Amino acid sequence: MGNRLSRDAKAMRPSPIRALAKITADKRIISLAGGHPSPDSFPVDDIGKVIADLSRSISARELQYGMTAGNLDLRREIVGILAERGVDTALEQVFLCSGSQRGLDLIGRVLLDPGDTILVEIPTYPGAIACFRNLQAEMVGVPQDENGLKTDVLQKTLEKLRQDHRRPKLIYTIPNFQNPSGATMSVERRAELAEIAAREGLYVLEDDPYCDLYFHENVRDSLRPVAALGKGEVIYLSSFSKILAPGLRTAFISGPKDLIEIIELAAQASDLCSSTLDQNIVLELIRNGALKHSIGRIRQLYEGRATALLAALKASMPQSVEWNEPRGGFFLWVRMPDSIDAEEMLERAVKRGVAYVPGAHFCVDGSGRSEMRLCYSKESPERLREGAELLAQTIKETLQKS
Amino acid sequence: MGNRLSRDAKAMRPSPIRALAKITADKRIISLAGGHPSPDSFPVDDIGKVIADLSRSISARELQYGMTAGNLDLRREIVGILAERGVDTALEQVFLCSGSQRGLDLIGRVLLDPGDTILVEIPTYPGAIACFRNLQAEMVGVPQDENGLKTDVLQKTLEKLRQDHRRPKLIYTIPNFQNPSGATMSVERRAELAEIAAREGLYVLEDDPYCDLYFHENVRDSLRPVAALGKGEVIYLSSFSKILAPGLRTAFISGPKDLIEIIELAAQASDLCSSTLDQNIVLELIRNGALKHSIGRIRQLYEGRATALLAALKASMPQSVEWNEPRGGFFLWVRMPDSIDAEEMLERAVKRGVAYVPGAHFCVDGSGRSEMRLCYSKESPERLREGAELLAQTIKETLQKS
Repeated sequence: MGNRLSRDAKAMRPSPIRALAKITADKRIISLAGGHPSPDSFPVDDIGKVIADLSRSISARELQYGMTAGNLDLRREIVGILAERGVDTALEQVFLCSGSQRGLDLIGRVLLDPGDTILVEIPTYPGAIACFRNLQAEMVGVPQDENGLKTDVLQKTLEKLRQDHRRPKLIYTIPNFQNPSGATMSVERRAELAEIAAREGLYVLEDDPYCDLYFHENVRDSLRPVAALGKGEVIYLSSFSKILAPGLRTAFISGPKDLIEIIELAAQASDLCSSTLDQNIVLELIRNGALKHSIGRIRQLYEGRATALLAALKASMPQSVEWNEPRGGFFLWVRMPDSIDAEEMLERAVKRGVAYVPGAHFCVDGSGRSEMRLCYSKESPERLREGAELLAQTIKETLQKS
Repeated sequence: MGNRLSRDAKAMRPSPIRALAKITADKRIISLAGGHPSPDSFPVDDIGKVIADLSRSISARELQYGMTAGNLDLRREIVGILAERGVDTALEQVFLCSGSQRGLDLIGRVLLDPGDTILVEIPTYPGAIACFRNLQAEMVGVPQDENGLKTDVLQKTLEKLRQDHRRPKLIYTIPNFQNPSGATMSVERRAELAEIAAREGLYVLEDDPYCDLYFHENVRDSLRPVAALGKGEVIYLSSFSKILAPGLRTAFISGPKDLIEIIELAAQASDLCSSTLDQNIVLELIRNGALKHSIGRIRQLYEGRATALLAALKASMPQSVEWNEPRGGFFLWVRMPDSIDAEEMLERAVKRGVAYVPGAHFCVDGSGRSEMRLCYSKESPERLREGAELLAQTIKETLQKS
């Protein structure tokens, strides 16, 4: 079969995180890997009630093919949600799709040719790496620090690319509670990014699934999307997967009107429309206030977990190990001494009963060898504490052997 | 924006049928265009009951990310459905996706590079044309007659392509109640197609959404898919959109195991998974017998409509107009005298109050100018009769003017 596959298909690789799922399916393993939202976060009762209402009100209309751009009323609500986030958007600039991953693929399909250069953060979301790799894009990494994407390095990277006659089409960024780093881009960096992108004619692809999951109200203002700054061309992507439930497969894109039109053409020929029932359910959960209520509860849930993990790391980790303190979202990033290969160490950690994702899976430049992503969304505070302890033991053991 | 789009995007065009939808949204227009299943066909009550049950039983499990290949229990049921159709398939050869259109795109993505040659029927489904065009495939047409794809012409086409050093990767066919022709491929032609494809190392992409919608039990045996013949490599695609409801966005692919694995990789990076609720609903409608019951009812519905349209065409059309008698599905194909341009005539037809899709939209070789697709799925028998009469008047008027 091999030589009859497309070039895209020949480049496709299994997701390293989905492969890890086989290990973490064993309930005895404490998973700091994953990255899925906690089942405890889903507003199951609210969704049950909305589904019960739907079972009574459903008509043929909800069961026919939907509009390619998505349910009109839901798009109207999303215009409102975007406005609350500071993003001023017209209805025809909003496109619904079956999850953010689908959004990434649609955006990639209409913008990227094989060999095109794009910029991504180091580290970044592996699902985006896989999507862009499958489209044969060449990814150039730009590092982050605790204030997110380093815009000074971005500037230098663009200059270097220009010397090589490479003109990147877009920069992919997750400014809020980044996956995997947990870092949040500072307000200053956001302004600089928008400025640079506008000047260079670079699309900013802003992926923002975690923005509502801040732990303290006082950081809220600093989370305003790059898309809210009114500079340059920003394609904004967000989702209900982390604030309602991923099974509902509803995400949204907003961006320049002409680009959204092309995305709709791409979707017409690649999925026609997304699930009409899912969109109806999400719409009702917004209208009846369940979403707002749910978000408040979810914030507390994850804040409790982050606090537990951070405290346990502090109590158990050797001094040579460093990590950041996320202000929201699911993740934090751990740096270990250079002598440790996180990929090699994983088997030992799993034997002790804890799993994580090695840092290299998130880095397109071959870095991340002695780093790892820890996800605190899935496990209870008790299990997180235990997991941190087991991980600390594994690291200490590995340091002693090296 | 134009020069920053991908080559794929530059080739994208709006669907001519979706554009027609704006005209047919006017309820006064009798639509023989469309192609959607009738809302009257949806088992709304059965779906309502299943949703009500789901509202009581739902747990976090159904709301989490699902498996990329789809709900395991539903895939097991589909193995059974395929067996009833004569297709012997293992569980790991079945992949669920969010509608057939999504299936076409996934299959295209893993098999086709820009410039690859593929074979399609003349006429064929415009959604497939759009999908393959967006992937930059070069489509070569093979004509049909009342017995479906002309396998002798296929043979000659392959020889000619070989002389031009072009090796097509796949042939796309809709053997049962074809969209748009309404023709059904004969048993002999299916055997010949399988034979030729096996010999030439050509994938058969068999799209079979209408197989259950036969009007008489006695044609059932002649509908056995090419995939059931056990020859060559057949990728079989079918859907619940026409036998339950399209809003449920559930279709399935079965094919060679190694190809299904690559399709799963493509889906991992382009949508992660399809709607878990939709799949749960479809599963329950199969298990509780509602699907089987629904299909029986739907067959009668469409048979009544086909009969009404055929009788009305016979009563009103001028002698120089020809059409076929479909034995199932939604469509029939009309050939008018060469002096008529179906595209030009459309405006006049719409003024009289009836719409259809001009034949050229279905033909990759520039043919179909004096042809049209009539769809009898949407309108009531009364409206179909009226529509046929209005169409006949339009054709007579056009013939007089030319």
